[in-house]
Amino acid sequence: MSDARRSRRGGRRPGGRGAATGGAPAAAAGKPYITRKIPYFEVVSEEGLQVIEDNAETILEEIGIEFRDMPEALEILGNAGANIDGVRVRFPKGMCRSIVQASAPSEYTQHARNPDRNVQIGGKNTVFVPAYGSPFVFDLDNGRRYATIEDFQNFVKLAYTSASLHHSGGTICEPVDIPVNKRHFDMVYSHIKYSDKAFMGSVTAPDRAQDTIEMIKIFAGDNYIDPESGRPRTYATSLINANSPMTFDDTMLGAAKVYAENNQATIITPFILAGAMSPVTVAGTAAQSLAEALAGMTFVQLVNPGAPMIFGSFASSMSMQSGAPTFGTPEPAMVLYTMAALARRLGVPFRSGGSLCASKLPDAQAAYESANTLLPAVMAGVNFVLHTAGWMEGGLAMGYEKFIMDADQAAMMAVLLGGVDVSENGQAMDAIREVGPGVHFLGCDHTQRNFKNAFYLSPITDNNSFEQWESEGSLDHAQRCNKRYKKLLAEYEPPPLDPAVDEALLDYMKQRKDSMPDSMV
Amino acid sequence: MSDARRSRRGGRRPGGRGAATGGAPAAAAGKPYITRKIPYFEVVSEEGLQVIEDNAETILEEIGIEFRDMPEALEILGNAGANIDGVRVRFPKGMCRSIVQASAPSEYTQHARNPDRNVQIGGKNTVFVPAYGSPFVFDLDNGRRYATIEDFQNFVKLAYTSASLHHSGGTICEPVDIPVNKRHFDMVYSHIKYSDKAFMGSVTAPDRAQDTIEMIKIFAGDNYIDPESGRPRTYATSLINANSPMTFDDTMLGAAKVYAENNQATIITPFILAGAMSPVTVAGTAAQSLAEALAGMTFVQLVNPGAPMIFGSFASSMSMQSGAPTFGTPEPAMVLYTMAALARRLGVPFRSGGSLCASKLPDAQAAYESANTLLPAVMAGVNFVLHTAGWMEGGLAMGYEKFIMDADQAAMMAVLLGGVDVSENGQAMDAIREVGPGVHFLGCDHTQRNFKNAFYLSPITDNNSFEQWESEGSLDHAQRCNKRYKKLLAEYEPPPLDPAVDEALLDYMKQRKDSMPDSMV
Repeated sequence: MSDARRSRRGGRRPGGRGAATGGAPAAAAGKPYITRKIPYFEVVSEEGLQVIEDNAETILEEIGIEFRDMPEALEILGNAGANIDGVRVRFPKGMCRSIVQASAPSEYTQHARNPDRNVQIGGKNTVFVPAYGSPFVFDLDNGRRYATIEDFQNFVKLAYTSASLHHSGGTICEPVDIPVNKRHFDMVYSHIKYSDKAFMGSVTAPDRAQDTIEMIKIFAGDNYIDPESGRPRTYATSLINANSPMTFDDTMLGAAKVYAENNQATIITPFILAGAMSPVTVAGTAAQSLAEALAGMTFVQLVNPGAPMIFGSFASSMSMQSGAPTFGTPEPAMVLYTMAALARRLGVPFRSGGSLCASKLPDAQAAYESANTLLPAVMAGVNFVLHTAGWMEGGLAMGYEKFIMDADQAAMMAVLLGGVDVSENGQAMDAIREVGPGVHFLGCDHTQRNFKNAFYLSPITDNNSFEQWESEGSLDHAQRCNKRYKKLLAEYEPPPLDPAVDEALLDYMKQRKDSMPDSMV
Repeated sequence: MSDARRSRRGGRRPGGRGAATGGAPAAAAGKPYITRKIPYFEVVSEEGLQVIEDNAETILEEIGIEFRDMPEALEILGNAGANIDGVRVRFPKGMCRSIVQASAPSEYTQHARNPDRNVQIGGKNTVFVPAYGSPFVFDLDNGRRYATIEDFQNFVKLAYTSASLHHSGGTICEPVDIPVNKRHFDMVYSHIKYSDKAFMGSVTAPDRAQDTIEMIKIFAGDNYIDPESGRPRTYATSLINANSPMTFDDTMLGAAKVYAENNQATIITPFILAGAMSPVTVAGTAAQSLAEALAGMTFVQLVNPGAPMIFGSFASSMSMQSGAPTFGTPEPAMVLYTMAALARRLGVPFRSGGSLCASKLPDAQAAYESANTLLPAVMAGVNFVLHTAGWMEGGLAMGYEKFIMDADQAAMMAVLLGGVDVSENGQAMDAIREVGPGVHFLGCDHTQRNFKNAFYLSPITDNNSFEQWESEGSLDHAQRCNKRYKKLLAEYEPPPLDPAVDEALLDYMKQRKDSMPDSMV
């Protein structure tokens, strides 16, 4: 996004003031993503990070990574200098790092259907993205149930109306009422139809990735190709998980290859339950994650040097009592801080974090755990914060109330990332001089000039007196969020979409859906 | 605490593993406070901090601070070089800073009745302290009601059994069933009788501060005076609030003087609702807070050079819609980060933070807001984290369930402060070599050796399957905490107390109580 466009919208703080108060589209609140003005927080020293990097190189060289069921990947990697032993690929020390650093962009623009909502991914930028991948949804009225395409569309609409979310996400929840082999059409269509923010494509098969790209071409039209570079513009950022430990499979790699060939972005993510898929330590999990991500990113850069790409990390720790994944505990936060620092040293955008929790309800556990992941994600400098809003029950459920409360938190994070204003107005010495000892500041000039945007104002938290709160029904936070999501959905208005484009999308979907029988795999 | 004593207890991580699982006394889990191994997080640059410090000096010199109803304080400050104009005291630039830096200790030991629980305050140390000062208590069974001495004792017991809390606190809640002028006896006695952790003294009048000291002398006996220095050992750390903006009164200053004269510690705290008692900006609030704290700390050091002292900061922001205080929003977090950095530059211990929230219930709002204050307190390097556990409703209520959930969070913070282990065992390369691609780590040697202490295990969060959670009653976090606080109280056993000391304390209280009529002021 150009500086000119930015300044045209005025100098309001990024995604901040009023962002969550109105449900107004993001563009109205300033830049459609956040550029941080505060430092990064790191927990591991320079020397410690070097040790972890060295261990990752040792893993790549001595142990290697398996690329399963995809001879083409083995050929590509072998041709580039890796040692192929069956499906095991061993990389000489430094090979992956040098290939990634030679061509991977340090940041890229993900284009949205509405160019005012293009997001810049990498560098000092933060993009908040809804949660991804749950089979269930939850709301206070109906409890937990399987997700449908209507739920999916509802969450696309809620993300569209949430100024603090910069992105429409991908498989927000699984629309289980549509056959597995056809639901990607409806999901991609919903992102295009009910939002104009950037979104994520299908990754469950190479041809589904291709369908995503074809549907992008339909709405992007002439804009799809960048006339300067002659390459496609990046309209999709899609999630490629490793099968940790140290394994990639053909499904995910095949989708990654399709996206890379078309200059679309992929997030190469070791998905780790520490203790099961990695060692029980932070430094061990970090080294393994780095090795896996380097191997996957190397593959992408070999497929198409310069294809945009995000280094991803998802780590939760295992309850050593029950084997269940736990969230919001300190160890995964330390993995997150460590991985963010490693990604910065590598020079690629980084994805992690979000409002992760294990809770089955939008209760205090959900909130503590979510805050204990979202705040580290923000402090660590995560660029693409997947799972920012809605995540419940270890990712098994997408919550309506949880989505609202998380989006409110994301709006607060935008203010925090804006840092401290030490301008003359920020110093407020005129106010202190005017007021003096023992008097209040409410009426002074400085307060009058600044009060509207002075402090973040949440649309859902209750700060009233006990008596007033009681008179309003003694609602808890989840109950207030229940009211709010219904209000936002009732007030939702879709972004304009050219009817010809809509028709072309529907035609494409129909033709493709008709070409194959329904399948539940 | 000596290194010898520390190592005698073995090398477990500070306050971490198992800390919250058993309700075992803190000493069993390692050092009775935390020494951080991770960096500090700061949001304002060196230059920005310098601007704020310069502004604080300008406030001290040009505007001045009022010391009301205490001619003795004016005399002390005037004799030291301040300009006295009525009750307004103006300090030449640099005066306060140089007086504080000349004699204020950068850290000190607060002694506990049980020397194994002495806490080191300042430097890289973190001490978690219960919430302070609420007139009400809350629990799920009875809702919100006025606090009694039984509630007070219950919270002393809960803090005693919570390994993650290093301190017994002070006026945890107001025992409104005891006359105002006599309840300090019962509060101090309860801290001594039902706990052996360090505690805070009464500050509501100079003679109540003196009573606190007399009761300390009774249990400390010969230990009260340090034979090396000939000065009293510091057994109390007590809370002295400024009447912001820019005002101190005789009640608080009188108590501060008594404590300082007896080498007991005070926390000099500007208590600020930004927008009402300070400007609506972070940098303005920080400059004013620094000026107020410097003035108060200067008074303490003039009363008794070298008296231990904490630089305190309490800042919430005001809802510019309703005037109500708000918590867990980004602006007070930025004030906290800024003040911590300013305290570090000054070279004195720092108090702030805690699990602050506005919520009337132990719900998601309470948890988000609390996490959004506690995590910054930990990252910023707060030494004395008052209000770590129990705080609800802007400090108006002390919550039983909230106390349990906050103490669990504090235990997680201890792990986070322990940082990343990059030892050979932490690197876990033997595990990665043993396991290899596509296999799980559960059975490998490294996991077997480490699993017990590998990850923080909360005693109250639910990570089970949805079905198991449902079969156990579909409890929310607060309901589980309700069960747990009752279990901890039922299992509570008091620390040993010499019956002769107990009798002497009760005698002192009776004699003093009998010497004055009951009063509700």
